[in-house]
Amino acid sequence: MSQRIYIFDTTLRDGEQVPGSQLTTDEKIVVAKELERLGVDIIEAGFPISSPGDFQSVVAISKAVSEPVICALSRAKKEDIDAAGEALKYAKRGRIHTGIGSSDIHIRNKFNSTREQILEQAVAAVKHARSYVEDVEFYAEDAGRADLQFLAQLTEAVIAAGATVVNLPDTTGYCLPDEYGKKIKYIYENVSNVHQAIISIHCHNDLGLATANTLAGIQNGARQVEVTINGIGERAGNTSLEEVVMALKVHKELGFETGIDAKRLYPISQLVSEMMRMPVQANKAIVGRNAFAHSSGIHQDGFLKHAENYEIMTPQEVGVPKSSIVLTARSGRHALKHRLELLGYRYDKPTLDTLYKRFLDMADVRKEVNDKDLMELIR
Amino acid sequence: MSQRIYIFDTTLRDGEQVPGSQLTTDEKIVVAKELERLGVDIIEAGFPISSPGDFQSVVAISKAVSEPVICALSRAKKEDIDAAGEALKYAKRGRIHTGIGSSDIHIRNKFNSTREQILEQAVAAVKHARSYVEDVEFYAEDAGRADLQFLAQLTEAVIAAGATVVNLPDTTGYCLPDEYGKKIKYIYENVSNVHQAIISIHCHNDLGLATANTLAGIQNGARQVEVTINGIGERAGNTSLEEVVMALKVHKELGFETGIDAKRLYPISQLVSEMMRMPVQANKAIVGRNAFAHSSGIHQDGFLKHAENYEIMTPQEVGVPKSSIVLTARSGRHALKHRLELLGYRYDKPTLDTLYKRFLDMADVRKEVNDKDLMELIR
Repeated sequence: MSQRIYIFDTTLRDGEQVPGSQLTTDEKIVVAKELERLGVDIIEAGFPISSPGDFQSVVAISKAVSEPVICALSRAKKEDIDAAGEALKYAKRGRIHTGIGSSDIHIRNKFNSTREQILEQAVAAVKHARSYVEDVEFYAEDAGRADLQFLAQLTEAVIAAGATVVNLPDTTGYCLPDEYGKKIKYIYENVSNVHQAIISIHCHNDLGLATANTLAGIQNGARQVEVTINGIGERAGNTSLEEVVMALKVHKELGFETGIDAKRLYPISQLVSEMMRMPVQANKAIVGRNAFAHSSGIHQDGFLKHAENYEIMTPQEVGVPKSSIVLTARSGRHALKHRLELLGYRYDKPTLDTLYKRFLDMADVRKEVNDKDLMELIR
Repeated sequence: MSQRIYIFDTTLRDGEQVPGSQLTTDEKIVVAKELERLGVDIIEAGFPISSPGDFQSVVAISKAVSEPVICALSRAKKEDIDAAGEALKYAKRGRIHTGIGSSDIHIRNKFNSTREQILEQAVAAVKHARSYVEDVEFYAEDAGRADLQFLAQLTEAVIAAGATVVNLPDTTGYCLPDEYGKKIKYIYENVSNVHQAIISIHCHNDLGLATANTLAGIQNGARQVEVTINGIGERAGNTSLEEVVMALKVHKELGFETGIDAKRLYPISQLVSEMMRMPVQANKAIVGRNAFAHSSGIHQDGFLKHAENYEIMTPQEVGVPKSSIVLTARSGRHALKHRLELLGYRYDKPTLDTLYKRFLDMADVRKEVNDKDLMELIR
């Protein structure tokens, strides 16, 4: 039996803080409802203390959405937690996400504090959050660069204080997959009360490793992953929801499953890209315009013979209409023949050879050859 | 002492076959010269048999560029290899890259062949290529899904036939990093003549794992990586050159180095994006517009206190002018104060508190607050 991985979507919090991507409350409700349809388990809806608009959005999303847990962010400060608790009062199931820096770099340079003080502040924050809600997630900011022994000590203390989820983020996108996996393993092996909570993974993509780090976390015991649609978020962004979900789906042998309806991945990617003004590059995995496009002659030929030659999943699985073949100077005879047949033209081999030569000359000049160009070629 | 990793750039071959990205020969020369300045070791310049334009481009790049090895692609067919050999005749150091499918899926469905026939064809192709050049790279297409024992047998045979480099690509972007790393390790442990050749890694990003798979390959013995600028290429693209180079640079403890001048990464990313009509998304690692932008209050505050809190490398290292701070409703007091000071305004705490409240109202409406807005706020 597959083990369930909980999908914590932070498109509306970590994703929404991106320059130029801010949404109005009404727009956030549209996205939140689509996330609910997609099947995410938790929606991080905002950071209530940060602005009156953000506070209102958490209230409005709590009222509009009923299936997923609604989560509100706070620092490990009383007034932050009060604002989060207040904003969540209409949530059917609310979660406060509170936390503080855990690496010595953050403890010294950002908080001007000590490990002992951080530990105390973390425990106090979790306890205070529990006075509002049953479900409290603690984030150990910059866990990716934290001392492992201290991280274990902090994790144990916040679970004892009532944290139901502990998030060990790679805040700066620094970790390598095997290294990050080993950190999570160490926590499972060295925190006595670890099974009273869920360990969560929150990665950033500064070195292009967020998806790999997230999978390494899962393979070493984590059961919640924090992700965004299209991987948007601070700097190089967060882990892409669609990449993690499809990697688990393609690699069934790992034995994990999510509650995501994969057919909704492409439509929600388009919605978020448009509403949040964050174009998705053509070569983005799963949801990019070219993700299922085959252009070289070798690939087109192989793909037409048998799709599995070049596709490990079908575009239909993620809600894209169909794989597309684009004819260019790199396309082979087989692709040209196939496209001509789709247009209703069949030729014998010598005619096809002549047409193919003319096609190559045209493609060298025009770069892409569309159906209109092909009709011209035939005439 | 660090071990040297050879950077094989295929922007002009695997990258250039992307729909809409075709370049003229003159444009290819511009890119090739920039790749030379960047410090890549090998430039894959094209696939000469595929079209007369591609043949000419390989000839022209061979004449224009002198430092890197110039590589031409071919299938394991006599006429392909003849075209590649012919196109490379002006190259100071030329390499023919020939190969054939190695997975049973490709052998059966694409080549309608058997393992025995594939082995024979591969050996014949390498031998024929060696009649043109000393440096012959063999690609075992779809190695990511190939039977490991057969892959070892094929690798041993082509090295014995004279291959100087053996490329074991994850053609469909299917592999997980630990799995791919183990494949490379298996090859090192089971191919008797493996140290007579360099093992090369060529990954695709269909599940967002290309960079992680490439690093796993290096950690298990591979010494050449096949990459493209901005990760462009078939479908979800190839491994990003900039991500691999910077991951090795940030993680010096791994003990690997490349010949890349990192300061040229951002400029060449911009050049390729523009010339090949492939916009880079804002949240692309290393070279995206937001890769070094800090927007949330927590992050801006921490970043201003000490850049290392949120940056594992500096934008200057990769040729981006400087980290940018963008003010939004998620920005904190500290970020507002900093920006006002840059504009030449210093305020006492109560005035700053009043300004911050007005700033939040403005930010909730305008989404991004620029310097002109701030001047309005002050007045």
